[in-house]
Amino acid sequence: MLSTTDIISGITKGSIRAVARALSKVENGTPDAIDLLDAIFASQRGFTIGVTGPPGAGKSTLVNRMITRYRNSGNSVGVIAVDPSSPFTGGALLGDRIRMQSHATDSKVFIRSMGSRGHLGGLSGATRDASIVLSAAGYTPVIIETVGVGQAEVEVAGLADITLLVLVPGLGDDVQSMKAGIMEIGDIIVLNKSDRSGIDQLENYVKASLDLMPAGLKRPEVVRVSAANGEGLEDLWGAVDRLSATHSEKDKILRSAVKTMNQILQENGILFSEKLLELEYNGRETVEKLILAGRLTPYAVGKKLLERAERMFEHNGSK
Amino acid sequence: MLSTTDIISGITKGSIRAVARALSKVENGTPDAIDLLDAIFASQRGFTIGVTGPPGAGKSTLVNRMITRYRNSGNSVGVIAVDPSSPFTGGALLGDRIRMQSHATDSKVFIRSMGSRGHLGGLSGATRDASIVLSAAGYTPVIIETVGVGQAEVEVAGLADITLLVLVPGLGDDVQSMKAGIMEIGDIIVLNKSDRSGIDQLENYVKASLDLMPAGLKRPEVVRVSAANGEGLEDLWGAVDRLSATHSEKDKILRSAVKTMNQILQENGILFSEKLLELEYNGRETVEKLILAGRLTPYAVGKKLLERAERMFEHNGSK
Repeated sequence: MLSTTDIISGITKGSIRAVARALSKVENGTPDAIDLLDAIFASQRGFTIGVTGPPGAGKSTLVNRMITRYRNSGNSVGVIAVDPSSPFTGGALLGDRIRMQSHATDSKVFIRSMGSRGHLGGLSGATRDASIVLSAAGYTPVIIETVGVGQAEVEVAGLADITLLVLVPGLGDDVQSMKAGIMEIGDIIVLNKSDRSGIDQLENYVKASLDLMPAGLKRPEVVRVSAANGEGLEDLWGAVDRLSATHSEKDKILRSAVKTMNQILQENGILFSEKLLELEYNGRETVEKLILAGRLTPYAVGKKLLERAERMFEHNGSK
Repeated sequence: MLSTTDIISGITKGSIRAVARALSKVENGTPDAIDLLDAIFASQRGFTIGVTGPPGAGKSTLVNRMITRYRNSGNSVGVIAVDPSSPFTGGALLGDRIRMQSHATDSKVFIRSMGSRGHLGGLSGATRDASIVLSAAGYTPVIIETVGVGQAEVEVAGLADITLLVLVPGLGDDVQSMKAGIMEIGDIIVLNKSDRSGIDQLENYVKASLDLMPAGLKRPEVVRVSAANGEGLEDLWGAVDRLSATHSEKDKILRSAVKTMNQILQENGILFSEKLLELEYNGRETVEKLILAGRLTPYAVGKKLLERAERMFEHNGSK
C-alpha cells in the first residue's frame, strides 16, 4: 500500500503505479486527495486538449490520430475518456474501443475512463483532478474526450486549454440546437468525415452560426478533416499548435487554477449545507419525513438554512 | 408590474402572463423566486415527461406527436426545451424548430426554451423550478426535452416522472458509450426511425445492454416507432400510460420533493462558500491574486475554508 507521500513523489517521477493510485483516490473523492492535489499542483506541465462532439462524430478516431502524432514527437500522452452518461458506474468505456487498441500496449500512453463515483464535484470535478495528476506525471498533452454537446461538455471545455468540437454531416435538426455549442465550446471546430455529402452545407451552417458571435469573442478556426483517411490532419495540427503558442504553459495553469478554485468552493458548499441541515432539523431523516408528509416544501427548507447561515456569519464575522 | 402575490395567484388560475413572469424570475434566479415556489408547490398537478437522446434522434418530431395526443384529450401541455449547450445565452431554440410550428398558435400549448442564466442550480435547477411553475398552472403533462445523453440529461431524467430515451440507427461507435445511459436514463427506450436499416441491430444492442443491468432495477420497456409517419405511437402511449398509472400524482410530487431539497442544499452551498471566502481572505480578489502568483493552490484554499467552517459549526452547535 502506497502512502500519500509515496504517491506524491511517485507522480512527479512518472510512476505508473502512483498515477493509477492517485486517479482512484481522485475519482472516489477520498479525503487525502485534496492534500495530494495541493502537493503536485505546481508540477503540472500543461497542456490539455478537450475533444467533444455528438455521438457518431468520429472523436475516437481523431483522438487516436492525435496520440500517434504526439508519440511520434516523443511525448507521453494521457487520455481521459469522460463518460457523462454514467455518473454512477464508471467503467472501461474507452479501453473497449477498438480504434484505441493500437496504443493499448504502449507504456507511454495512459488511457483512463472516468466516472464520477464519490467526487463531490461530480464528473467534471473528477476529470479536472485527474488531468492535474496526469499533467504532473509528465503526460503532454492530456487529452480529454467526452461525448456530447451539453452542459458537462461546456464544463470540460472550461477545463481544457484547447477544445476541439467535432461535427459531422447528417445531424439533422439538432445541428440547430448546437448553435450555442458552436459559438461557446470550441476553440477549433473540426468538420470530420469531409468526404461525406453534406459537408459544404455543414460548413456553411457552422460559419453562419459563428457570424452571430458577439463582437470581442475569439472566433474559432474551422478545419475540415477526414480522421479515418488522414486528410486535413496537418491543417488541424497547425491550428492546435498556433493556439498553443499563444500562451505559456505556466499562464495556462494559473488561469485554470482560478476556475478550479470556483469549482472547489461549490464542492465544499455541499458539505456546509449538509451540516446546516443537521443543526437546523436534527438531520436529514426528519426533514424528509416532513416533506413526504406534505408539511414542508424543499424551498422552505432552503430558506430556513440560508437564514441560519446568515446568523452564524453575523456571529463569526471576525476571526 | 405584477407583485409576487399577484404572480402566485395568477399561476394557480392558469394566467399565461403570470406564468411567463414566474418563469423569468426562476430562470434569472431572482431572490423572490424561492417564496413563489414555496407558495405554489402544493398546487402542482404532476406529471412530467422527459424526452432525451442524441442529436438527430427525432426528438422534436416525437414531442410534437405527444403534444397532439394530449391536446386531443383536452389537456393543456407545457414544453420546456432545455438547451444544455448554452448555460450562458438562453434563447428561443425550440421556438425556431419548424416541426413545432403546428402548435405555435394554440394557446393551450406553452413552449419555453430554457437557459440557466442566474440560477444557482444551473440549467437543471432552472428546469426543475420551471416545471413546478407550469405544473402548478395546470399544464399536464409538462414535457422536458433535452439534447444529449450526458450528465445534464441524467439530471433531467431525475426530474421527470417518466423519461423517454430516444435512439436511432446509425450512431456508430458512440452507441457503446451510451450503454450506461441506456441502463440508467430511460424508463422507456424509444427506437425511432423504425423504417431505417440497422433498426434490428440497434434493438439487439439495446437489449444486450439491458441484460447487463444489476438485478433489482426496473428494466425499461423498448418500443419501436416512426415518429415521422406515426407507426408504433399507440404502443408508446400505452407504455407511458402504464408507467404513469403505477404512481399517484401526489406520490410523484412528494418523492421528487426530496430530490429537489438535495439540489437546493447544493445551490445554497455555493452562497455559503462565497461568504467563507470573504471572511477568510477578505474577498475573492486577494485569493485570485495569490493563486495567479502561484503562491496558493486552489486545493489549499478549499482546505482552509473547510477548516474555518468546522470551527464555526463547533461554536454554533446549539441554537
